[in-house]
Amino acid sequence: MAKFIPLSVPNFEGHEKEYVSDAVVSEWVSTGGSKVGDFEKVFADYVGMPRAVACNSGSSAMHLTALVAGIGRGDEVIVPTLTFIASINPVTRYVGAEPVFIGCDDSLCIDPAAVEAFCRDKCELRPEGLFDKATGAHVKALEVVHVFGNLADMEALMDIAEKYHLIVIEDACEAVGSYFTKGRYAGRMAGTIGDVAGYSFNGNKIITTGAGGMVVSNHPDWAEHAKHLSTQAKSDELQFFHDEVGYNYRLTNLQAALGLAQMETLETFITRKKEFYDRYVQALDGKNGYRILPFKEDVSRSNHWFYSLYLEDDRHKRDEVIGALKEGSIQARPVWALIHEQADYGSCQAYSLEKAQDYRARIVNLPCSTNLTQEDQQRVIDLLLSL
Amino acid sequence: MAKFIPLSVPNFEGHEKEYVSDAVVSEWVSTGGSKVGDFEKVFADYVGMPRAVACNSGSSAMHLTALVAGIGRGDEVIVPTLTFIASINPVTRYVGAEPVFIGCDDSLCIDPAAVEAFCRDKCELRPEGLFDKATGAHVKALEVVHVFGNLADMEALMDIAEKYHLIVIEDACEAVGSYFTKGRYAGRMAGTIGDVAGYSFNGNKIITTGAGGMVVSNHPDWAEHAKHLSTQAKSDELQFFHDEVGYNYRLTNLQAALGLAQMETLETFITRKKEFYDRYVQALDGKNGYRILPFKEDVSRSNHWFYSLYLEDDRHKRDEVIGALKEGSIQARPVWALIHEQADYGSCQAYSLEKAQDYRARIVNLPCSTNLTQEDQQRVIDLLLSL
Repeated sequence: MAKFIPLSVPNFEGHEKEYVSDAVVSEWVSTGGSKVGDFEKVFADYVGMPRAVACNSGSSAMHLTALVAGIGRGDEVIVPTLTFIASINPVTRYVGAEPVFIGCDDSLCIDPAAVEAFCRDKCELRPEGLFDKATGAHVKALEVVHVFGNLADMEALMDIAEKYHLIVIEDACEAVGSYFTKGRYAGRMAGTIGDVAGYSFNGNKIITTGAGGMVVSNHPDWAEHAKHLSTQAKSDELQFFHDEVGYNYRLTNLQAALGLAQMETLETFITRKKEFYDRYVQALDGKNGYRILPFKEDVSRSNHWFYSLYLEDDRHKRDEVIGALKEGSIQARPVWALIHEQADYGSCQAYSLEKAQDYRARIVNLPCSTNLTQEDQQRVIDLLLSL
Repeated sequence: MAKFIPLSVPNFEGHEKEYVSDAVVSEWVSTGGSKVGDFEKVFADYVGMPRAVACNSGSSAMHLTALVAGIGRGDEVIVPTLTFIASINPVTRYVGAEPVFIGCDDSLCIDPAAVEAFCRDKCELRPEGLFDKATGAHVKALEVVHVFGNLADMEALMDIAEKYHLIVIEDACEAVGSYFTKGRYAGRMAGTIGDVAGYSFNGNKIITTGAGGMVVSNHPDWAEHAKHLSTQAKSDELQFFHDEVGYNYRLTNLQAALGLAQMETLETFITRKKEFYDRYVQALDGKNGYRILPFKEDVSRSNHWFYSLYLEDDRHKRDEVIGALKEGSIQARPVWALIHEQADYGSCQAYSLEKAQDYRARIVNLPCSTNLTQEDQQRVIDLLLSL
């Protein structure tokens, strides 16, 4: 049987073992120890923010963004339907808010035109904010997910948010390292444009801490509040006073050790991701009914995290392609099932879904680990061309 | 300056470095990998349950207990006020429920007589459950915390729960390894007596995974539900279907590696904790206005996790003792500030608080790490006797 080619797995070719062993030998593996602060500082410097707050998952990071943004019971949040469910639960259900689902544009990210149409046609702008005419609810925030590392149309989205008084929450979980090279936000990293953002270092992400996340905010007090909430909202360390309901969302020193090593290789990983991407494009795009979906290379440097093979006609069916790859010991997956059809979201408002439905039906995500060999990638390509 | 003696820190004298390095070298550090399942199995066997569900913190474990118990918005939960706030937030505020706070008996655990008085005097038992006469709310559960590893009076509490139709949630976060040796529950470990329980492997606990927790339940479907909720409630792995709002509460393989090593030394740690405890009793109990609070050694084998120096008269004031120890480079702490006075709990019902208030005012927790040396412990004792 052929060697298994996974979709996206960690790559520890740097100082991971050394740093983690240091942590274990020092017995600083829990939430004390210096590596958490070091990792926060290295990450903040990398994305160009004064402060970054480490936490134990991307889900925790997104929950913290909603909490510090003051989203609560009865509020509405405009969210994309084409994303992982952990983009949605933490900024809506975890805080008692209601999502309004919006489809995507051809970047796979939330469609600005559809967001604006909802705000304009379905809502009323009052001095105290935007209100949903049908439900009466306060539409408090817009969540933007940079899907697969491809940057959303932030210029259009930030304009809409300003016009309609919406807080902008960026879900940059998949976009560590992506930044704009042109336009109003040239030089700005994913996650540093809206009001507050979360990142993920889950095992399948471009860098990993096993599990982990980070929060940044353009409001310094929001970032501090995120830190406070992530550490049980303890207002006096010795006396165990707590001034609000907090969480144990701390990253451990052991995980931060991994993170520090991974940050050292992040740019190498991004270079490699681009090389693999270019090779897929070269070999597959426009051939055999395949397209490889683009990143916004004209206006941004993307991290090229996840590659999307798009089946442009009926020559191939998504699950048959995935099945054939599986037969060949190659792991692939469809894009996520649309969230407005998941969990208890079935009765929520959802608009402009056509493109999201099409991408859901036609995308196959291909192996993209940073330790993918050229030989393995060729095996993926050859198999796809043989179908 | 004298060597610093911490309160309670991890001790990695076993295979920790080896197992963790294995995980890093194999690049299985995230939520995949075999060590999580192995750790769950070893832990389940240890506590004598068919299934244990690993998660990323004690707080997550407690949140899962409340979710699988079906506690939700508007329900009331009877909880102790003398505990860490992470006992309370997850089973009340995280799920939208309201706490009713009860004081402790001389075990520091929730006072059965006061629990019964609340159920009898303030509530009405109807066929559909217990209802709070003042608020009209359904009093759905009783949370029992085994404080500092000392077992609560489970016989009395289980009788009350049966009589008043209460679900029993055990917070066994501090009591890994404590079990009854006599009575109705002889041979039963902390956490295996009520309906559902959580454990913690935080850095200050008797064993640690850096951060981590575990859930067990006497209802096999509740345990499976906890696993499902902890893994984003994914009902189809490939297709990304989610049948309810889930969480990313998974433990990582890296943390499980630590846990497996720690489980190998747990019984050694417990033996040592008892020796240190006996030495504190021998040296301090009944001397200089000091008592060392007992564990229930007549009916249980306690893990002796945390030692409580009790200041029995006005010769010593708690914060002065802590300050004097700090001057001597020795870390100590008071017991927690009572939770009915923390966060937004100030307006909640709270009963029979006298003992909890007294213990809060008079307890100093002394260094108890399993790598405490005899020489260091003698320094703690000598300093205390010199005050």
